[in-house]
Amino acid sequence: MFRNQYDTDVTTWSPAGRLFQVEYAMEAVKQGSAAIGLRSKTHAVLACVNKANSELSSHQRKIFKVDDHIGVAIAGLTADGRVLSRYMRSECINYGYTYEAPLPVGRLVVQLADKAQVCTQRSWKRPYGVGLLVAGLDESGAHLYYNCPSGNYFEYQAFAIGSRSQAAKTYLERKFESFPGSSRDDLIKDALFAIRETLQGEKLTSSVCTVAVVGVGEAFNILDQATVQALINEFEISGEEAPATASVAEEGAGDAAADQGGAAAEEEVAPMDI
Amino acid sequence: MFRNQYDTDVTTWSPAGRLFQVEYAMEAVKQGSAAIGLRSKTHAVLACVNKANSELSSHQRKIFKVDDHIGVAIAGLTADGRVLSRYMRSECINYGYTYEAPLPVGRLVVQLADKAQVCTQRSWKRPYGVGLLVAGLDESGAHLYYNCPSGNYFEYQAFAIGSRSQAAKTYLERKFESFPGSSRDDLIKDALFAIRETLQGEKLTSSVCTVAVVGVGEAFNILDQATVQALINEFEISGEEAPATASVAEEGAGDAAADQGGAAAEEEVAPMDI
Amino acid sequence: MFRNQYDTDVTTWSPAGRLFQVEYAMEAVKQGSAAIGLRSKTHAVLACVNKANSELSSHQRKIFKVDDHIGVAIAGLTADGRVLSRYMRSECINYGYTYEAPLPVGRLVVQLADKAQVCTQRSWKRPYGVGLLVAGLDESGAHLYYNCPSGNYFEYQAFAIGSRSQAAKTYLERKFESFPGSSRDDLIKDALFAIRETLQGEKLTSSVCTVAVVGVGEAFNILDQATVQALINEFEISGEEAPATASVAEEGAGDAAADQGGAAAEEEVAPMDI
Amino acid sequence: MFRNQYDTDVTTWSPAGRLFQVEYAMEAVKQGSAAIGLRSKTHAVLACVNKANSELSSHQRKIFKVDDHIGVAIAGLTADGRVLSRYMRSECINYGYTYEAPLPVGRLVVQLADKAQVCTQRSWKRPYGVGLLVAGLDESGAHLYYNCPSGNYFEYQAFAIGSRSQAAKTYLERKFESFPGSSRDDLIKDALFAIRETLQGEKLTSSVCTVAVVGVGEAFNILDQATVQALINEFEISGEEAPATASVAEEGAGDAAADQGGAAAEEEVAPMDI
Amino acid sequence: MFRNQYDTDVTTWSPAGRLFQVEYAMEAVKQGSAAIGLRSKTHAVLACVNKANSELSSHQRKIFKVDDHIGVAIAGLTADGRVLSRYMRSECINYGYTYEAPLPVGRLVVQLADKAQVCTQRSWKRPYGVGLLVAGLDESGAHLYYNCPSGNYFEYQAFAIGSRSQAAKTYLERKFESFPGSSRDDLIKDALFAIRETLQGEKLTSSVCTVAVVGVGEAFNILDQATVQALINEFEISGEEAPATASVAEEGAGDAAADQGGAAAEEEVAPMDI
Amino acid sequence: MFRNQYDTDVTTWSPAGRLFQVEYAMEAVKQGSAAIGLRSKTHAVLACVNKANSELSSHQRKIFKVDDHIGVAIAGLTADGRVLSRYMRSECINYGYTYEAPLPVGRLVVQLADKAQVCTQRSWKRPYGVGLLVAGLDESGAHLYYNCPSGNYFEYQAFAIGSRSQAAKTYLERKFESFPGSSRDDLIKDALFAIRETLQGEKLTSSVCTVAVVGVGEAFNILDQATVQALINEFEISGEEAPATASVAEEGAGDAAADQGGAAAEEEVAPMDI
Amino acid sequence: MFRNQYDTDVTTWSPAGRLFQVEYAMEAVKQGSAAIGLRSKTHAVLACVNKANSELSSHQRKIFKVDDHIGVAIAGLTADGRVLSRYMRSECINYGYTYEAPLPVGRLVVQLADKAQVCTQRSWKRPYGVGLLVAGLDESGAHLYYNCPSGNYFEYQAFAIGSRSQAAKTYLERKFESFPGSSRDDLIKDALFAIRETLQGEKLTSSVCTVAVVGVGEAFNILDQATVQALINEFEISGEEAPATASVAEEGAGDAAADQGGAAAEEEVAPMDI
Repeated sequence: MFRNQYDTDVTTWSPAGRLFQVEYAMEAVKQGSAAIGLRSKTHAVLACVNKANSELSSHQRKIFKVDDHIGVAIAGLTADGRVLSRYMRSECINYGYTYEAPLPVGRLVVQLADKAQVCTQRSWKRPYGVGLLVAGLDESGAHLYYNCPSGNYFEYQAFAIGSRSQAAKTYLERKFESFPGSSRDDLIKDALFAIRETLQGEKLTSSVCTVAVVGVGEAFNILDQATVQALINEFEISGEEAPATASVAEEGAGDAAADQGGAAAEEEVAPMDI
Repeated sequence: MFRNQYDTDVTTWSPAGRLFQVEYAMEAVKQGSAAIGLRSKTHAVLACVNKANSELSSHQRKIFKVDDHIGVAIAGLTADGRVLSRYMRSECINYGYTYEAPLPVGRLVVQLADKAQVCTQRSWKRPYGVGLLVAGLDESGAHLYYNCPSGNYFEYQAFAIGSRSQAAKTYLERKFESFPGSSRDDLIKDALFAIRETLQGEKLTSSVCTVAVVGVGEAFNILDQATVQALINEFEISGEEAPATASVAEEGAGDAAADQGGAAAEEEVAPMDI
Repeated sequence: MFRNQYDTDVTTWSPAGRLFQVEYAMEAVKQGSAAIGLRSKTHAVLACVNKANSELSSHQRKIFKVDDHIGVAIAGLTADGRVLSRYMRSECINYGYTYEAPLPVGRLVVQLADKAQVCTQRSWKRPYGVGLLVAGLDESGAHLYYNCPSGNYFEYQAFAIGSRSQAAKTYLERKFESFPGSSRDDLIKDALFAIRETLQGEKLTSSVCTVAVVGVGEAFNILDQATVQALINEFEISGEEAPATASVAEEGAGDAAADQGGAAAEEEVAPMDI
Repeated sequence: MFRNQYDTDVTTWSPAGRLFQVEYAMEAVKQGSAAIGLRSKTHAVLACVNKANSELSSHQRKIFKVDDHIGVAIAGLTADGRVLSRYMRSECINYGYTYEAPLPVGRLVVQLADKAQVCTQRSWKRPYGVGLLVAGLDESGAHLYYNCPSGNYFEYQAFAIGSRSQAAKTYLERKFESFPGSSRDDLIKDALFAIRETLQGEKLTSSVCTVAVVGVGEAFNILDQATVQALINEFEISGEEAPATASVAEEGAGDAAADQGGAAAEEEVAPMDI
Repeated sequence: MFRNQYDTDVTTWSPAGRLFQVEYAMEAVKQGSAAIGLRSKTHAVLACVNKANSELSSHQRKIFKVDDHIGVAIAGLTADGRVLSRYMRSECINYGYTYEAPLPVGRLVVQLADKAQVCTQRSWKRPYGVGLLVAGLDESGAHLYYNCPSGNYFEYQAFAIGSRSQAAKTYLERKFESFPGSSRDDLIKDALFAIRETLQGEKLTSSVCTVAVVGVGEAFNILDQATVQALINEFEISGEEAPATASVAEEGAGDAAADQGGAAAEEEVAPMDI
Repeated sequence: MFRNQYDTDVTTWSPAGRLFQVEYAMEAVKQGSAAIGLRSKTHAVLACVNKANSELSSHQRKIFKVDDHIGVAIAGLTADGRVLSRYMRSECINYGYTYEAPLPVGRLVVQLADKAQVCTQRSWKRPYGVGLLVAGLDESGAHLYYNCPSGNYFEYQAFAIGSRSQAAKTYLERKFESFPGSSRDDLIKDALFAIRETLQGEKLTSSVCTVAVVGVGEAFNILDQATVQALINEFEISGEEAPATASVAEEGAGDAAADQGGAAAEEEVAPMDI
Repeated sequence: MFRNQYDTDVTTWSPAGRLFQVEYAMEAVKQGSAAIGLRSKTHAVLACVNKANSELSSHQRKIFKVDDHIGVAIAGLTADGRVLSRYMRSECINYGYTYEAPLPVGRLVVQLADKAQVCTQRSWKRPYGVGLLVAGLDESGAHLYYNCPSGNYFEYQAFAIGSRSQAAKTYLERKFESFPGSSRDDLIKDALFAIRETLQGEKLTSSVCTVAVVGVGEAFNILDQATVQALINEFEISGEEAPATASVAEEGAGDAAADQGGAAAEEEVAPMDI
């Protein structure tokens, strides 16, 4: 109620050593529609929930191709995400011209993080309000990174961001140990199951989600809707895991308050590592 | 009442991860006079309500030609809209000089969105207070985009913005499935019916609306008033749909409060995708 | 009383999507002494009320020649108006040098409007506090525009701005339908009658008003005082319209409160089209 | 008492469309010691009241030569006045180099006004706090202008600014009709009488005033003290007008409150023409 | 509660001569996960606690290689730390190109400190929110520095920063006198014991910590996890010191309040030497 | 008590047309130790009271040589004074290089004043907090100017600034009429008597004051302490004027309150001529 | 309690003509650990109290070599002091390159002071928070200067700054008259006694202080710890002065409150000479 003095200016530290404006920008990520990513040794898959503004529009794009070997899924302020993915695209092109080789994923991610950091240290800017899951393939294999508004980034085996992403994270945590050895199609399947967890009772159809893949021998591409629907049909017919995940979902619902608290606790372990 | 601390500076995040100044700028769009757009595979039509400042003036232009293949209808701060449509015009000219080909519609729309995004991340600027419906034709067919003050854009089959646009949207949602196959004249007819929905009992005449078309074999052009009046006469004579839409309008009036709430709900699904 | 939070900075949107500083600047126009403009197909006439600061000074110039084919009448902050008319003058000269042709009136008006718009989107500037009636003649005939502090402009058949301009507008609205076909002298006569409406009982003499004309075969020129007085004498002798307008004026006075309200209502129809 | 919200920043409009900071700067002029100017067709005379900071100093210069044909008298912030008169001097020199002709007075006055206007539209500046009476002679005869902090200027037959200038204005208004035909010496005499009006009982001597003349065949020059004293002696001996002006002064004193009100009323007629 | 007036702007001194924003930034270091460093005459060791954001991610890197002879461990805002370690890297490269010799550690540390100082003296920046332990080897032997947000740096025999670093400091203070003569492996062993002190009951495994070494004949390298685990196993088997340190830990817990106070006291001896 | 709204920003006018920040800077001059200056037709003398910060330091220099023909004595913020005297020095050198002649005193004084004026019209600066007595000799004889923080300057026969300068001014006013014809030594003697007036009972010795002279045939030089002491001894022995001045001092003390008021009154005659 | 209005911005004058932010920065000097300096005709000695941040670190350097003939001791914000001593170093190098002679001490001190002054006149900077004792030898002998945050500097025979420096100043004031003729070793001895005065009961050992010397035939050098300890042992054995200084210290303690007041009084004699 009274912490107002330190939370309106991105260049103002609170007495406890926090940058509230950076933390608030991270809230923006939590309010975007969900996006998830996961990877094996050879492939990386991105998926997101489509939110159409109205019946009249196609859904808004949340997954962007950056280069043949890199793509990105965003949650939060779409305009910020688009500007950043454009930046990534031009960095890839420049690197390609200069070195005649694809820009390593990790290197791009660091440049992106530095661009975000600058916005947390100038009084006339604001932190970007978007989280980015960057999936890519380079000489060291498939990668998945999460870049957040603080200018920080993390490498993940699998991750979920955006609204109701906690349920997807729970699903991914149960399964991630098998991901490194997963086939391309298994990854897609797990991506779809994870997405389903974020839907809260809404039926999973190809129109409510987008799926993209990059992997050995396969340039980054967004799957067409028919392919996605076929996969959904195939997996739901088999019905495997569904009851279990449903019960998890129920638990999740029952534990909503606790989850909230848990999530908060988890996030507050080391707030300044943001 | 007390949320004042975070809503006066465009570079300040609220604790919930919102940019109030961006949201307020979007309110400006809702207060402009209505504009609608719709498209088939081969044609796109823009229409808007004319508001004359007084009997003494012609109405103010709200539809601008950008290039032979692109036009725009605006709602909100007219001066901002004019500056942006000028920007679009010069981008089209520059592209034409360089590539000797028309600038693809989607590409122009992204540049426009990026220009708007910058204004949401500098403390000494303000977000543009205008929404733009961009209609155009390129190699991939007819397009309709909505660019909003947040720096975001959406592709639509049909859309309406500005004051009392909800009634038009309701009309368009009932009919849009047939639009892809519509003829040029059917699109114009539906545009006129949609505009009529926003008039709240005012009689539709050629003086209260402007209509523009772009399509295969037809450069972007604003229809002259006589043509529009002829079309109004023709359609109203036939009287088709009128009773139904009237009743819809009545319902709409009856459901005003609910609509309000509904509109609000719809918009708040994922506030950070703005 | 409590709307202070959003109305001191030109780059701050109010929650309802308004820019109060722009609206306040438009108030400055209402407080300037009155200016009116009207046009036929071939001529345009500007007239304004002269306010001498004291007996010792000549009245302050409110009508400026921009070029042989364009002139301007201002209401509001005179210094701002002078700076803007200087800008217009140099644009005309530059255009003339480059194209060896007069700058089309509409084109100049748009440039002027863009210059004003910039001042509504930089935190370290302020909107201009002046309204400009631009009268000119080009290949498409005689024109009359009104440029306002918001960066917006309107084309008019006839218009009045400044203090007590409502009475003049009422006069012009009664008569404007005949203006397109009016002769040069009829336009001047109507201009003088309209000016008389704003004087509230003060006697109309050549010393309290300035009149300027531009038309086919006649470069923009300010009529000398003797000519104006001769015209006043001629028209008042005939006495035509005087009783009627007087009664209108009386009504106007009687309806002052209502007028106020009406004016307010009219202006608030679509506030963001400013 | 509560109008504080809009009056501390020069780029903030009040809800009534006023720029308080500009109006406050104009108060600074009223507090400077008095300066008066008057002109015939061939001559212009400036005079001001000398205020010595102490016995130990000569009085401060308030009248500056700008060029052979132009001079200026200031009231208000002396440092601002000096900077502006320096600007005028260099403009005259530059014009002379380029055109080998003296800079027309009116043209210089406009440049000066534009320089002042800029300071009313930048948040990091402040309006100049000085009023300038510019007297000059060019091909169109003798001129007298008043440039004020708002960036506005006025042409006068005669004028007075600064503290207690109202009494001088009253004197000038009674006499100004004869000024166009006055001889050089008559103008000086009237200047001295006008200055005497501002002294409130203090005796007029050559040490309390400065007088300067420019005219046909006479470059701008400040009269030496002996000459001024001789003129004072000559006129006071004749005693003409003294009783009358004294009684006027008495009336003036008696009507102080009313004058105040009157002055205020006069100035508030059209506040935005400042 | 009321010290707000001086603590929101990095360029504002408090009446007691303190820069609160700098002190608040130093709080950010205390909230990062712990990092420790220690050195002998020939070797320097860095170690830190790994905090994984979730099971799904590898832990975040807190130790960075700067050059073959220098590395850094950070606590606090990771993004700031990354940007600064990047800066250090490029300084080393530039020096190497110019002088064909490694950049002396102390010289790099001063450049880093100067970069931080600038951020404490510009109103539009903020102090970096990160502490850096810089370990390196040059001609003058092994070095360990601590660079803090104030732009200050200190040379240490051994040091610990970040959350719960007090217990590690207590351990290091008991043992540091023997460090100058320690072998490489003894240093690593002491680093692991010191890290264990910060874990509060959590079991020390190779997954919760990272260890890096630089020394004579050994370029800066981060030990692989297996090596670290082998060392942990070897030392824990021997069990030496463990009971003692445990009891120390208990005391530490019992003296929590006092420690707090002590820490505060220690830090407040000469606040402006920050 | 409540005038706070207009007195924290140098670019903000008060409603009464005052610039409080400029007036406050002038207070800084009153708080510096006293400085006095006086001149004959051929010589100018500066003197000031020495304030040693402690026994351990020599007193701080308050009189600076600018060039062979110009020197300056300051009161107020010493650092500001030093920076300004450095500026004066380099202006003299530059002028000398260009014209091979000494810079006229009055010309330097105007440049200095302009430099000060700029600081009163930029929001990110502050007025200089120092008053300067400039003494010099050029072709037009000896000069004494006072430059004050407002950007204004005055020419004086004799003047005193700084704390308790009122008593010195009273002394100088009694005597100044004889100064034009004074010999060099008489000027120094009067300077010493004036300085004694500011000491309030403290004994005048060569260690509490500094004296400097410039004149025909004598470059600006600061008298050495022995010379000053010899002069003090010589004059005090003669005892002339001492009783009188003492009684004046007593009166001065007795009239302290009145003097205060008087000083205030004197300064408020025409506040905007600052 | 209520003087907040004028003390948060370095460019804001208080009504009494003070710059509070500059005064607050001077408080920072008082909170640093003590530093003292003294000089004979041929030698200058600097000494300071060492404050180790912890047992684990060497103490922080407070005395820096600038050039062979100049060194500096600082109290206050160490980072600011380091940046300034670096500036001094590069000035010395540049001067040496250009003139092939050592930079005179006084000239360097003025440049340093000017650099500090700039920080007191820009709204986006802050005054440096450090005091510097500059000791050096040049053609005019040994010098000791004190540069303070206000941009001012003073030449001293001996001086002490930082926490508890009052006791050292008392010691130096008792002895300074003999310093000009002191031998190098006598100066060091007095420096050590003065340092002891600031320790408040703590025992003087070579580890709690640093001593540096510059003199004829001896480049600026920091004495090694063994040499310092040997000197301490030698002097303490002799015991001379110790009882006396102890009693002085006791008095000092007894007069703490008075001293405070005295210090305040001393400093407030002429506040604007800061």
